Amino acid sequence: MLVLIANLGSTSFKYRLYNMAAGEDRVLAKGGYERVEDHGVVIEDALAELEKSGAVGSRKEIDAVGFKTVLGRDLSGCVVADERALAALEGFAEVAPAHNPPYAAGIRQFARILPDARLIALFETAFYQWVPEAASRYAVPESWHAAGIRRYGFHGASHKFVAERSAELLGREDVAEVVRGLYQNGPQAVDKPLRVISCHLGGSSSVTGIRNGVAIGTSMGFSPQSGLPQNNRVGDLDSGAIPYAAKALGLELPEIERQLTKEGGLLGVSGVSNDLRDVKEAADNGNANAQLAIDMLIHETRRWASSFLFDLGGLDGFVFTAGIGENGAELRAAVCEGLEGFGLKIDPEKNAACKGEETEISTADSTVKVFVIPANEELVLAREVTRKISSLS
Amino acid sequence: MLVLIANLGSTSFKYRLYNMAAGEDRVLAKGGYERVEDHGVVIEDALAELEKSGAVGSRKEIDAVGFKTVLGRDLSGCVVADERALAALEGFAEVAPAHNPPYAAGIRQFARILPDARLIALFETAFYQWVPEAASRYAVPESWHAAGIRRYGFHGASHKFVAERSAELLGREDVAEVVRGLYQNGPQAVDKPLRVISCHLGGSSSVTGIRNGVAIGTSMGFSPQSGLPQNNRVGDLDSGAIPYAAKALGLELPEIERQLTKEGGLLGVSGVSNDLRDVKEAADNGNANAQLAIDMLIHETRRWASSFLFDLGGLDGFVFTAGIGENGAELRAAVCEGLEGFGLKIDPEKNAACKGEETEISTADSTVKVFVIPANEELVLAREVTRKISSLS
Repeated sequence: MLVLIANLGSTSFKYRLYNMAAGEDRVLAKGGYERVEDHGVVIEDALAELEKSGAVGSRKEIDAVGFKTVLGRDLSGCVVADERALAALEGFAEVAPAHNPPYAAGIRQFARILPDARLIALFETAFYQWVPEAASRYAVPESWHAAGIRRYGFHGASHKFVAERSAELLGREDVAEVVRGLYQNGPQAVDKPLRVISCHLGGSSSVTGIRNGVAIGTSMGFSPQSGLPQNNRVGDLDSGAIPYAAKALGLELPEIERQLTKEGGLLGVSGVSNDLRDVKEAADNGNANAQLAIDMLIHETRRWASSFLFDLGGLDGFVFTAGIGENGAELRAAVCEGLEGFGLKIDPEKNAACKGEETEISTADSTVKVFVIPANEELVLAREVTRKISSLS
Repeated sequence: MLVLIANLGSTSFKYRLYNMAAGEDRVLAKGGYERVEDHGVVIEDALAELEKSGAVGSRKEIDAVGFKTVLGRDLSGCVVADERALAALEGFAEVAPAHNPPYAAGIRQFARILPDARLIALFETAFYQWVPEAASRYAVPESWHAAGIRRYGFHGASHKFVAERSAELLGREDVAEVVRGLYQNGPQAVDKPLRVISCHLGGSSSVTGIRNGVAIGTSMGFSPQSGLPQNNRVGDLDSGAIPYAAKALGLELPEIERQLTKEGGLLGVSGVSNDLRDVKEAADNGNANAQLAIDMLIHETRRWASSFLFDLGGLDGFVFTAGIGENGAELRAAVCEGLEGFGLKIDPEKNAACKGEETEISTADSTVKVFVIPANEELVLAREVTRKISSLS
C-alpha cells in the first residue's frame, strides 16, 4: 500500500511517500515547497516529480493521502477526510488559523487531483477522546462550553506513539496492541495497570498522562497556547491577567492575543530567542533571564508530569520525546532530579550519552523506567492511515 | 495585649476583639455591620459599643488593629499598615477591586480614630514570598511581568495555619516553630524534610504544597480567579479562550470578565447554584450537570495536589480545611480515592464521622497522615499581628 503524507502550511507543502506493505514502512520519496501561493500547483508538481523519478509508475498507484490536522469542531479521531471533516476544520478556523484553512484547502485539492485515493485525516486531538469529562471541561458559563471551549489536547500523534513504544519497551505487548487498535476499537481492559508519563519537549511542548495505553489528561487545553511555556507562546496564564493587562497596559484584545502568542514563552522570559539552543547558550554566558526561562520550562514539565500521578495511581514509565526531549541531556537530568522517592532514578552516564537515539536512561534499580523515544510523526501518521484503511475495507 | 481584627468589605464591616496576653487567645467581643455607606461612622459605633459593653474600659486600651489584606503591588508579608502599604493596596486596586479600596479606606479611618494603636496588614499572598521565581512567574512578555502579572497565591493565612498545626500533629515541633516565626525570620533549615499538601476547599478554594513549613507553590495565581473551579469564578482557563470567545460569542472584554467571575465555576457548570450544598442536593436528585460540577472540583483538587508531589519529593501529611474541606466527608473520600500506592489511606468511618472538628482521618497503617483542620482565620491573623508587634518592640 502506498501512502502519501501531506504536511500543509499556509505557504508551504511537504510530503513523504511511504510503502506500507505488510511488515514494511519504507520512505520511497520526500520533498517540499516553501512560499507556496497555489497549493494546487505544487501538489501537481509533486505528483509529476514522483512519476518522473520513478517513485511511482503513475500517481494512480497512491492508495491514500494522510493529513495531520490539528483540531475540528465536534469531530476528532482518525477519520475519512470527507465533507464532514472539512466542515469540522472550517468550523474551528478561528481556533487554528495557521493550520485549519490550509488543510481544508489542501484536502479539497487532493480530492480533485487524486479522485481515487482515500483521504484520511488524523486530528492532533484524537488521542484525548477518552479523557473523562471532568478532566476535559472548563468551569466556564454554558454558552462558552457550547461554543466549543473545552480542553482538547494536542501532539496526539506523538504521545500515542510513545504510548505504543513504551509499552513494547516495558514488555507489555498487550498494552501496545491496545494502543495500535485504539482508533478502531477504543480502550480495552488489560490484566494489570501500566502507567506512563510522556514529555514531548520541543519547539512546542506538552506532557501527557497515559494509563493502559489511553491518555487520561494532557497539559495543552483549548489551544496549543496553554500548558508548558512554548517557544514564543505563553503557556498557562491566569485568565484574569487579560482584563488587567488591557487596563494596565492599554492594549486591545487583538494586540493582547498577538503578544501572548508571538512574544511570550521562552522568548518572552529570556528576551533572547524562541529557540532553546540560543537560550541555553545565553544562559551559559551568564544571562539570568535566559536561565530563568530554562528553569521555568523544567519546573512546568515537572509540575504537569506530577499532576497526573494521583489519577495514574502509580508510575511505571517516564518518557522524553521531540527535539529538546531527545537531545537535551541536562534538561532531562533536571526534570528527573530528586525523584528517588518515587522509584525514579536516571543513570547520569547513559543520560549524557543519549542524543536522539531510543535509549533506556534509568538505572537498573529504578522501578520507574525512563526512556528517550525519538518521535517520527510522519511514520506514525502513515501507520494510522494504513490501519484506518484496513478497517474500512 | 488587645488586638482588634477588622474585616472590611465594600459595604460591610466585621470585627473581633482578642485578648492575646501570653498563653491566651480569647475572643472578648465581636460584631458586624452590613450595607455600610460610611466606614468611619460604623468604626466609631463599634468602638463606642466595645466601651459601653465593658469589653474595653477605653478604646485606648486597644494595642493593635489587624487587617487581612488581599494583595499589594510590590509588597507582601505581615507589615505595618503605613503609607507604603496603602500605596501597595491602591496600586493593585484594579486587581482586587472588591477588597483593596475598602481596606485602604478602612486603614486610613483607623489611623485617624485610633492614632495610638499599631495597624498591621497581613497580605493573603504573604505565605508565598519564598516560592522560587521559576514557579511564580508566567511566560508573559516582559512588559506584562513589569506590570505585576505573576503568580501571587491567596488563602495564605489559612494554608500557613495548616502548615503550623499539621507540623504539631505530625510531631514536628521544630517545623511548627519555623512556621510561627516565618514572617519574622524567614525559612529555616530543619533536620529532616516534612512534606504537606493543604486543601482549602470552600466558597473559594485552593491547594498549596508545603515543604518544611514553607509554601513551594499554590493553585491560585495572579488572581483568585485561577486554580480550582470556584463558587462562580472560572478557575484555570486557557488564555486563548478569551480572544476566541470575543469573536465566537461577540463579547467585549468587560462582559467577558463579568461572565468569567460571576457566571463560571460551580454555578456555570451546574446551572444550579454557586453553593456546593445546593449543587450536591441537585446531583443527589439526578442533575447530571450538578454531578459534573462536583466531579470537576474533585478532579482539579486531585490534579493540583498531585502537581506538588515531584517538588515535595514525597508526602507526609494531607490536610483538608475550610467549609467544604471540614464538612464534606464524601468529597474528602473522593479526593483520597485510589491513593494507596502513595501510602495514603483514609478510614471510612473516621472520615464519615468528622464534621468540622480537628480529626485524623487516615488509617493506622497509612504512611501519609490525613487530617481535617478547621480554619480560624481571625485567630490566625490575631496571632500574626501579635508576633509582628513583638518583633517591633
